[in-house]
Amino acid sequence: MHPAHVIYALDLFGVGVFAVSGALAAGRKRMDIFGVVVLGLVTALGGGTLRDVLLDSGPVFWIENPVYLLVAAGFSLLTFFAVRIITAHRKGLFISDAFGLAIFTALGTSTALITTESNSVAMVMGVMTGTAGGMMRDVLCAEVPLVLRREIYATAALCGAFVYVLLNGLGVQATPCIIFSTIITLTIRLAAIHWGFALPIFQAADMDNSD
Amino acid sequence: MHPAHVIYALDLFGVGVFAVSGALAAGRKRMDIFGVVVLGLVTALGGGTLRDVLLDSGPVFWIENPVYLLVAAGFSLLTFFAVRIITAHRKGLFISDAFGLAIFTALGTSTALITTESNSVAMVMGVMTGTAGGMMRDVLCAEVPLVLRREIYATAALCGAFVYVLLNGLGVQATPCIIFSTIITLTIRLAAIHWGFALPIFQAADMDNSD
Amino acid sequence: MHPAHVIYALDLFGVGVFAVSGALAAGRKRMDIFGVVVLGLVTALGGGTLRDVLLDSGPVFWIENPVYLLVAAGFSLLTFFAVRIITAHRKGLFISDAFGLAIFTALGTSTALITTESNSVAMVMGVMTGTAGGMMRDVLCAEVPLVLRREIYATAALCGAFVYVLLNGLGVQATPCIIFSTIITLTIRLAAIHWGFALPIFQAADMDNSD
Repeated sequence: MHPAHVIYALDLFGVGVFAVSGALAAGRKRMDIFGVVVLGLVTALGGGTLRDVLLDSGPVFWIENPVYLLVAAGFSLLTFFAVRIITAHRKGLFISDAFGLAIFTALGTSTALITTESNSVAMVMGVMTGTAGGMMRDVLCAEVPLVLRREIYATAALCGAFVYVLLNGLGVQATPCIIFSTIITLTIRLAAIHWGFALPIFQAADMDNSD
Repeated sequence: MHPAHVIYALDLFGVGVFAVSGALAAGRKRMDIFGVVVLGLVTALGGGTLRDVLLDSGPVFWIENPVYLLVAAGFSLLTFFAVRIITAHRKGLFISDAFGLAIFTALGTSTALITTESNSVAMVMGVMTGTAGGMMRDVLCAEVPLVLRREIYATAALCGAFVYVLLNGLGVQATPCIIFSTIITLTIRLAAIHWGFALPIFQAADMDNSD
Repeated sequence: MHPAHVIYALDLFGVGVFAVSGALAAGRKRMDIFGVVVLGLVTALGGGTLRDVLLDSGPVFWIENPVYLLVAAGFSLLTFFAVRIITAHRKGLFISDAFGLAIFTALGTSTALITTESNSVAMVMGVMTGTAGGMMRDVLCAEVPLVLRREIYATAALCGAFVYVLLNGLGVQATPCIIFSTIITLTIRLAAIHWGFALPIFQAADMDNSD
């Protein structure tokens, strides 16, 4: 298989997994079928959409290629009906979600480096592509985004994005950069799920400013 | 009257109605006059703004034509003062809101078909134009968007957008497409208000994944 | 010092102050270090990002010039560690925040007038540049934005933006417009902090519409 096909397949896999994650979140809030599809679409397509809008590189990716839209909508609908029959395994979902995070972060970093030469901007765009969809999902559920409060999630993405810009700076081609970056994010995230790592929490003696 | 003038008048009517809806939501949260105007602007202009940003077709519509901005701000201010004198009728508001939804969906689908040839993308953009303003309003009120939880609201918009792309595919001109699409959305939405239809809710035996 | 350097320095000062405000808000929600940096970035860069996206004038400012990104990330991290040692003074923060609001509003209005000739659009863009970052911060904290509920905050920005378009309409150059606009916003905001002004709240006899 050609590397570009592998990456495209992984990208669609990430879209499907994130759509399931969004649809399940909608279910926890007792949304109707429309709400489930909207949450699925937002979670799956939100990060990449924000990336394309900020980079200002023409219409967003799912307008250019509606296959992404159809995959996200299809998996959301499937989830809506499947949960009546099968029970979702928490750990299975976390592992699938880790694949989505890893590939989205690598591809987001890759896309950003077409427009910008700044490594810090590319890393921010990569992490954002991987995490913003889940943040939008949580905002629509009127909750503080989980990503901001918990575990080595975004940090795994940050490490993956860092490896990408490091290899890219050494003159490595895009495909191996994407593969290594994905492996790094995935390994750290899976290790965090397995051993339950967490980052230090903000600690202040006595704070109550309010603006 | 020229069809373009009818459509422009309907569009401004939709903006005014949605501004009232946003201003009233702000009132329920006891916001100040600035909050009322912001909620009115976001509700009235949010959907079309998101559409223009995603299609990447130059500055958004209310920057091109500030009349939209002035109408939205005017109706928000009017609502702020009017509620001290007159009591809003729930049903009257729902019916006005249905007009806004119907015309915004038809015009959103129409605008999207200038940029994209994909019917599924155009339908998503149409529904988004009709519903995203209300979703942003609810997010700013720190609530789960009503559209995601309740009734035949977005589904009415989806049917209207579907009729638009169907007629468009058959070679029908833009103006009759807009008129038929608007009538379909409006009829379904008004019927739903009158008889209290609702969509099936997401149902899962025992779910508590959390990512 | 050249006026452009003064403005650039003030702009970076505003970014730093807003990053501190976002990082402290994240602390109140007990976010981890990643959440603190995200809230800092969103608060500091959110308003200008929204302005650039809506005006559709190429990649957003912090992609063009990553110094903004680094300053915002640096101040967020600094806040994360500093709060363990020093207690933030509420009033000191409010006053710093007022400087950020004033300079962001003036620069937002100035940037908008490059694209649009409409004074009302430019004023909206100015107020949005000054306040949207704080609104995004509050939405990510799952709270109704403070700006919409409280005090002469956005109103100070509106007065500053009004003074800008007034002077601009009289043919005054950009630099004095920015300086006067900043002083007006700052004065009104500091007076409001000192004497505790507030705007009238939305008042309705008996409202409970829900759409």
